[in-house]
Amino acid sequence: MTKLKGAAVFGQSGGPTSVINASASGVFQQALKEDLITEVYGAAHGIRGILEEDFYDIRKETQEELDLLKTTPSSALGSVRYKLKDPSVDDTDYKRILEVFKKYNIRYFFYNGGNDSMDTTNKISKFLAKSGYECIVMGVPKTIDNDLFGTDHCPGYASAARYVATTIMEIYHDARVYDTPMITVIEIMGRNAGWLTAASVLAAYKGAGPDLIYLPEVPFTMEKFIKDVRKVFDTKGGKVIVAFSEGCKNSEGKYIAEMGATLSKDAFGHAQLGGAASVLADILKNEFKCKVRGIEFSLMQRCGAHIGSKTDVDEAFMAGQEAVKAAVSGITDHMVAFERVMVDGKYTCQPKLINLSHVANTEKTVPLEWLNKDQNFLTDDFISYALPLIQGDSHPPYVDGLPHFAKLKKVSVPKK
Amino acid sequence: MTKLKGAAVFGQSGGPTSVINASASGVFQQALKEDLITEVYGAAHGIRGILEEDFYDIRKETQEELDLLKTTPSSALGSVRYKLKDPSVDDTDYKRILEVFKKYNIRYFFYNGGNDSMDTTNKISKFLAKSGYECIVMGVPKTIDNDLFGTDHCPGYASAARYVATTIMEIYHDARVYDTPMITVIEIMGRNAGWLTAASVLAAYKGAGPDLIYLPEVPFTMEKFIKDVRKVFDTKGGKVIVAFSEGCKNSEGKYIAEMGATLSKDAFGHAQLGGAASVLADILKNEFKCKVRGIEFSLMQRCGAHIGSKTDVDEAFMAGQEAVKAAVSGITDHMVAFERVMVDGKYTCQPKLINLSHVANTEKTVPLEWLNKDQNFLTDDFISYALPLIQGDSHPPYVDGLPHFAKLKKVSVPKK
Repeated sequence: MTKLKGAAVFGQSGGPTSVINASASGVFQQALKEDLITEVYGAAHGIRGILEEDFYDIRKETQEELDLLKTTPSSALGSVRYKLKDPSVDDTDYKRILEVFKKYNIRYFFYNGGNDSMDTTNKISKFLAKSGYECIVMGVPKTIDNDLFGTDHCPGYASAARYVATTIMEIYHDARVYDTPMITVIEIMGRNAGWLTAASVLAAYKGAGPDLIYLPEVPFTMEKFIKDVRKVFDTKGGKVIVAFSEGCKNSEGKYIAEMGATLSKDAFGHAQLGGAASVLADILKNEFKCKVRGIEFSLMQRCGAHIGSKTDVDEAFMAGQEAVKAAVSGITDHMVAFERVMVDGKYTCQPKLINLSHVANTEKTVPLEWLNKDQNFLTDDFISYALPLIQGDSHPPYVDGLPHFAKLKKVSVPKK
Repeated sequence: MTKLKGAAVFGQSGGPTSVINASASGVFQQALKEDLITEVYGAAHGIRGILEEDFYDIRKETQEELDLLKTTPSSALGSVRYKLKDPSVDDTDYKRILEVFKKYNIRYFFYNGGNDSMDTTNKISKFLAKSGYECIVMGVPKTIDNDLFGTDHCPGYASAARYVATTIMEIYHDARVYDTPMITVIEIMGRNAGWLTAASVLAAYKGAGPDLIYLPEVPFTMEKFIKDVRKVFDTKGGKVIVAFSEGCKNSEGKYIAEMGATLSKDAFGHAQLGGAASVLADILKNEFKCKVRGIEFSLMQRCGAHIGSKTDVDEAFMAGQEAVKAAVSGITDHMVAFERVMVDGKYTCQPKLINLSHVANTEKTVPLEWLNKDQNFLTDDFISYALPLIQGDSHPPYVDGLPHFAKLKKVSVPKK
């Protein structure tokens, strides 16, 4: 492929994280430097912005705001949950994308997201290639779920993990002040992979963590759960902290939350979860006749940029830069991934590229051998894996004692 | 009163805060310096530790741990919710306290807490005085509720306020990423006073806050609430953020949470609140047929030391020191309070002393003139009040990327 010259478009997709904007900053700042890239566009609300020609001109943004993006949580361009149909069934959207790309001479397409978004990226890449339109397509990983295939870890995970571990340490101190029994059930995000819930063990590593940890990788049974809680309750003076993944299911594949509420479904057909903590709290209250508190980390765990991991922020920025560097070198149809390389026993993170077809829709779960025998706690192997990722304190600059977040000008590109 | 020489005991009471240990640090470090104070004891679980002669010897603690207390959330000595009876009805506990004080030659009693605890402190002070036992009694204020009478503000409030404002700013960014309607209802602590919920307006001051704020000071009606939400929904593209106090009640004095759950009561007869967010979320979901998320800040808001206000931490420490300084100067039966003194237009905080009888059981609520005409938002007067309090970033030292909290040795004092 001869080197392509043209505009670049970048979009954000899926649930936001604390560092998805750090990747945006990396893409933008690198793209603005590249001679082959004539224009740098941000797509409003991901793929929808492309379909609707809703682009922001990133050249109009200041260096200061682009730098502030590194510590600004959530998706500054707006995100989307929009499922492209299989092109063999309905290629309307793909044709429209091709039309828009041609119109704006878009030759570089960067898409930042998780499993579903990489599937979207892959389908677009294959369609463009098939149609003969020369365009570099590059995926940038992102997910607090840490479940993308082919990468040691995913940008966004470590900052959410640092939020989870730090907050549980604080809750641990709070939940033990009275000399009466108290059970605390903390619900943590993660649809099918328990990586984020597993991070709660880092608080235990610091001596102030959960007693029991339940991941969706292990089929859940209420009987064993109550037995587990009883054992801790009896040996630790009635003080129990449970970290629980929202994605835990029983052997019939039924979510715990379904026992308490009817589930609605999002655009991808995934069940919208939440509520497991209050369901379990009710059951435990009835069983143990003591104070039980159900806590849901809700949106806070994925947008807590004030307790971000500097390692995560730096790597997310780097992932964005690397995507652009690889793209202008002529590589297409790949996603940037991370390889852990130990140098003199010290953690380093090296970028690598993996084929989009390999990553799309493949979920990476927590290895079962990293769980203890009772499958209700994590071993030191997990701690060795996760601890290097949460090193370094990242937070936004504070003005008036509060975060100063980026506020992009979002100058619209005139429609063609 | 001649200057008293003897042991000092300090206890922590009521719900923990991010900075109650900072006050403990102030009391301990000052008491250890004073010649009149022969021993420095920490009471385990507040008044219960006194009744049970369960004391820690603070002289056995290291300077490093006493310093770490300043950034360690929750009550390091353990807290308690124990209501002393009226001494005219049953003075058993008071006699026991007197007995213990005599046995250990306790001549200085410092008690750290909120309204209920100051009532306890006041009753003990009056009983000791009446019984002729010479003992200095001094209250140290503490409450995230900020509802203590006679003080400009209370230690613990500002750090919780900074947590609330920062977290809402992050949620604001998260809750707006999709191009579809979404209503977010955030439930914030505060039994009868809306100070902490009001602090959510600081996020709005920074351009990323709630659209509507509901305090317990204003009787709540569901009809007006839905009308208010509708107005924002229609004018802001379906994006609404509501900050809601757990203490909101309708005109019959019924909590919103009571509409969804049966309430249990704590030892002081206060209703245990929580659940308003999910009740309201259900109602709004039904009304607006869009995505609605109920979020409860739960324990996190009162133990989030990693996002503490340095002003708050410093003032809490100072309050502890001042209590000891006043005590050894011979003053008794008072609580340390704060006076706001503007020097060259700049906020400063001066300690003052107020009579325990005046502070006990009197609640200070948010002035209604600081609410807007619709009584669903705060005015600039509140912002001017609250903003100086949250200045400065305080967090624990980080080791392994996670908080390093104090771990007291808690060497028990041999029982006499």
